[in-house]
Amino acid sequence: MPREILYLKIAKILEEQILSETLRIGDKLPSIRSLQKIYNVSLNTAQQAYVVLENKSLIEARSKSGYYVSRTSKRKLSLPSVSNPILNESKSTPEDLTFKVFDALRDKSIRQFALGVPDESFLPIAKLNKGIVKVMREVDGSGTAFEPAQGSINLRRNIAKWSLVMEGKLNEDDIVTTLGTMNAIYLCLNAVTKPGDTIATESPVYFGILQLAKSMGLKVLELPTNPITGVDLDALKKNIHKIDVCCFTCNFNNPIGSLMPDEHKKQLVELLTFHNVPLIDDDLFGVLHFAETRPKLCKNYDEAGIVMCCGGVSKTLAPGYRVGWIAPGKFKEKIIWNKLVQTVAMPSLFQEVIADFMEYGRYDLHLRSLRNTLHTNCLQFQRTIEEYFPENTKISQPQGGFFLWLELDKKIDTSHLFDLAIKQKISFTPGRLFTEHNQFNNCMRLNFALPWNEKVENDLRRLGNIIKHSL
Amino acid sequence: MPREILYLKIAKILEEQILSETLRIGDKLPSIRSLQKIYNVSLNTAQQAYVVLENKSLIEARSKSGYYVSRTSKRKLSLPSVSNPILNESKSTPEDLTFKVFDALRDKSIRQFALGVPDESFLPIAKLNKGIVKVMREVDGSGTAFEPAQGSINLRRNIAKWSLVMEGKLNEDDIVTTLGTMNAIYLCLNAVTKPGDTIATESPVYFGILQLAKSMGLKVLELPTNPITGVDLDALKKNIHKIDVCCFTCNFNNPIGSLMPDEHKKQLVELLTFHNVPLIDDDLFGVLHFAETRPKLCKNYDEAGIVMCCGGVSKTLAPGYRVGWIAPGKFKEKIIWNKLVQTVAMPSLFQEVIADFMEYGRYDLHLRSLRNTLHTNCLQFQRTIEEYFPENTKISQPQGGFFLWLELDKKIDTSHLFDLAIKQKISFTPGRLFTEHNQFNNCMRLNFALPWNEKVENDLRRLGNIIKHSL
Repeated sequence: MPREILYLKIAKILEEQILSETLRIGDKLPSIRSLQKIYNVSLNTAQQAYVVLENKSLIEARSKSGYYVSRTSKRKLSLPSVSNPILNESKSTPEDLTFKVFDALRDKSIRQFALGVPDESFLPIAKLNKGIVKVMREVDGSGTAFEPAQGSINLRRNIAKWSLVMEGKLNEDDIVTTLGTMNAIYLCLNAVTKPGDTIATESPVYFGILQLAKSMGLKVLELPTNPITGVDLDALKKNIHKIDVCCFTCNFNNPIGSLMPDEHKKQLVELLTFHNVPLIDDDLFGVLHFAETRPKLCKNYDEAGIVMCCGGVSKTLAPGYRVGWIAPGKFKEKIIWNKLVQTVAMPSLFQEVIADFMEYGRYDLHLRSLRNTLHTNCLQFQRTIEEYFPENTKISQPQGGFFLWLELDKKIDTSHLFDLAIKQKISFTPGRLFTEHNQFNNCMRLNFALPWNEKVENDLRRLGNIIKHSL
Repeated sequence: MPREILYLKIAKILEEQILSETLRIGDKLPSIRSLQKIYNVSLNTAQQAYVVLENKSLIEARSKSGYYVSRTSKRKLSLPSVSNPILNESKSTPEDLTFKVFDALRDKSIRQFALGVPDESFLPIAKLNKGIVKVMREVDGSGTAFEPAQGSINLRRNIAKWSLVMEGKLNEDDIVTTLGTMNAIYLCLNAVTKPGDTIATESPVYFGILQLAKSMGLKVLELPTNPITGVDLDALKKNIHKIDVCCFTCNFNNPIGSLMPDEHKKQLVELLTFHNVPLIDDDLFGVLHFAETRPKLCKNYDEAGIVMCCGGVSKTLAPGYRVGWIAPGKFKEKIIWNKLVQTVAMPSLFQEVIADFMEYGRYDLHLRSLRNTLHTNCLQFQRTIEEYFPENTKISQPQGGFFLWLELDKKIDTSHLFDLAIKQKISFTPGRLFTEHNQFNNCMRLNFALPWNEKVENDLRRLGNIIKHSL
């Protein structure tokens, strides 16, 4: 058989296995060498077969890991629409709903699609525990002493090296540690706003930002947001004179998963620099990219020091450690001072444990496997939802992080659906929480950072059924 | 020899030994049974001898510990005057001075009389480390998981039991944990004030309160304060209509060491309840009493829930753990909400370690020995200062805590003296930091929570000489 036909034949066999779901989303394919042996063909032929399948978006190569099934069939469900915040509508705060969702998080018998952090099984707990014992012996006073107001030097050095990836543009002096990333955002807002000021956000926006803004007496301007490319820069430009500070999640927005293209980031920073509007860039999810490389930061384009880049390890290592940070640009001194007077210092031990974990690239190694798992989970969740949810369900296409955003039939109110789902021991986050306006009532956020198995698949199917019955 | 004369004779011998400094301040005296054997007298006679010396204030009994020398000679130096804040004077913020003092704290070659926490040797570090290892194995996810927004239930229960001592009036539901006590005070102020509001404080007042107020846009009204009984209630009454919240340290004020009598506390709470002015009572030092029993809290008299009682373990166990708390009365819900939105949660592990340390009264046991040491140190410092400092030095008489407040000759400016002392490797906290006004320039705060030895005594003598030379 001629070589050209051979590789097409192998591709065809694999394609049929994928479409018949003999090979399912997230499954690892044989290595090229194995394929070569299975079909007794040349290395080149085996490689060509995979190129064909890659071009059809049926499989994907993952760095240093191999080839994986990425799609079973053609995508059936469409993307959520570009958001259109109803800016002038009267606001109501769904505090009851917030408490209801938070309360359900403590119930271990519930399938926690509402969770805001990865499942415990995704965290390197044993290694972190070793770190605690090691660091306890090494640091001054075993962590009973105060550290510098700016935070642990070890941690700051390792963040500059392993987490922000700014090609040497940042060093330990450019970073301030904080009590987790929400506290980082709080310190940024605290440094640049006064009550009555307006912050611009994406729409939908992480409810923590809305709660924080409210508690600080700040107004929120939710901007139209594209589910793939993030906040609409034209809308931002039109409203720029009303805005005192922007608070965006450019890399893998929570909940919608959008990733702002580099060119937009550049334009964004230029626009804000021109108008002297500070930008808080919440990069908590930036290291959880599904593509080969980490996305750039707005900070990469920041000549004037107006960008405050926030990060942390709550989504990757240990939520309960409360270790976060800021690269605060020109607001550094003010932020350090406020941190000092409001809390004196952060607990030093956990900072040293995280620094120790980052040292020598151990964090990097952990992230590589975590990203791989999350990517597979994302595909599994999408496939299952396509299969079991109503056909008019719209679903986001995150390129990193671990949240899916679903837009259901207009008739569905997910605040009510939540009660029905909880009765069946399933939680999710109702869309209404992600805005100050009376919107997103037919939306929900799902966490896919759970160990994928038949039980999870079954719970997703049950959730789909609850939705179908509600229609 | 008649019995009456016998006990007087023994008392006379001991008095001479004390006055000649054969027996020095802080020295432990023989037990009554030993005394009985030494002089071959009855138990009653031995006891009578100590009563005579106690009545002369030469020795003192300490609970479950025995008798100690409390004074070598008659007190030579007088008390600092009741403070008289210069309310209308233009304010200047000595930020340079603050940074200078803070910077010097990191230099291990310096004698740190400026330190705000006890010397490391006073902390039960080995026991705490054992606690970390134990708790790490026991708690959910080894501390990587989130805890409830209100804080660890274990810790809250133990605080109610061991630290606040409210005779069963408080339980774990009445307490919110915080990131150390300054963060507790911040959360209280955050819950009840808006920028432009006025807080009333003692004078002198801990500089952390002044810095915090400034960063929150609050005005400070410093009230006249008696070095023994604390804030002047008449002055408070006169100014009550200008005040939005009071922030006092009724038990062992930092820096002056005053202790508000119970009757004043009752009056204070009644006055503030009548005018609906909340009280933040910083009780960080309340467990470090030199007298037999822990002083009462303003919270004891709080029927209306207007008192927010703050505490923590930074002065007794582990400053770097950042474990504090509030018993926030009627402001509880607001404080929990603000804590949640600004930081999500506190690190859980350290809270469990402290809870574990408190359980079964281990904290109580540690405090008993710490109090004893601090009391002796206080007497040693007072004696040494009386001996080596100029005769017109005034010195506070703290009844707990570990700070002495000195008022020097009017000609001395302690902000300048600080530079001279640092050159000789001695630090202290200049009085100017403890007010927003141009006052206390001839005052200083000294930390006596350092292991007492000849080197410390010598450093105090050198400090006295620097002052004498400056005159």
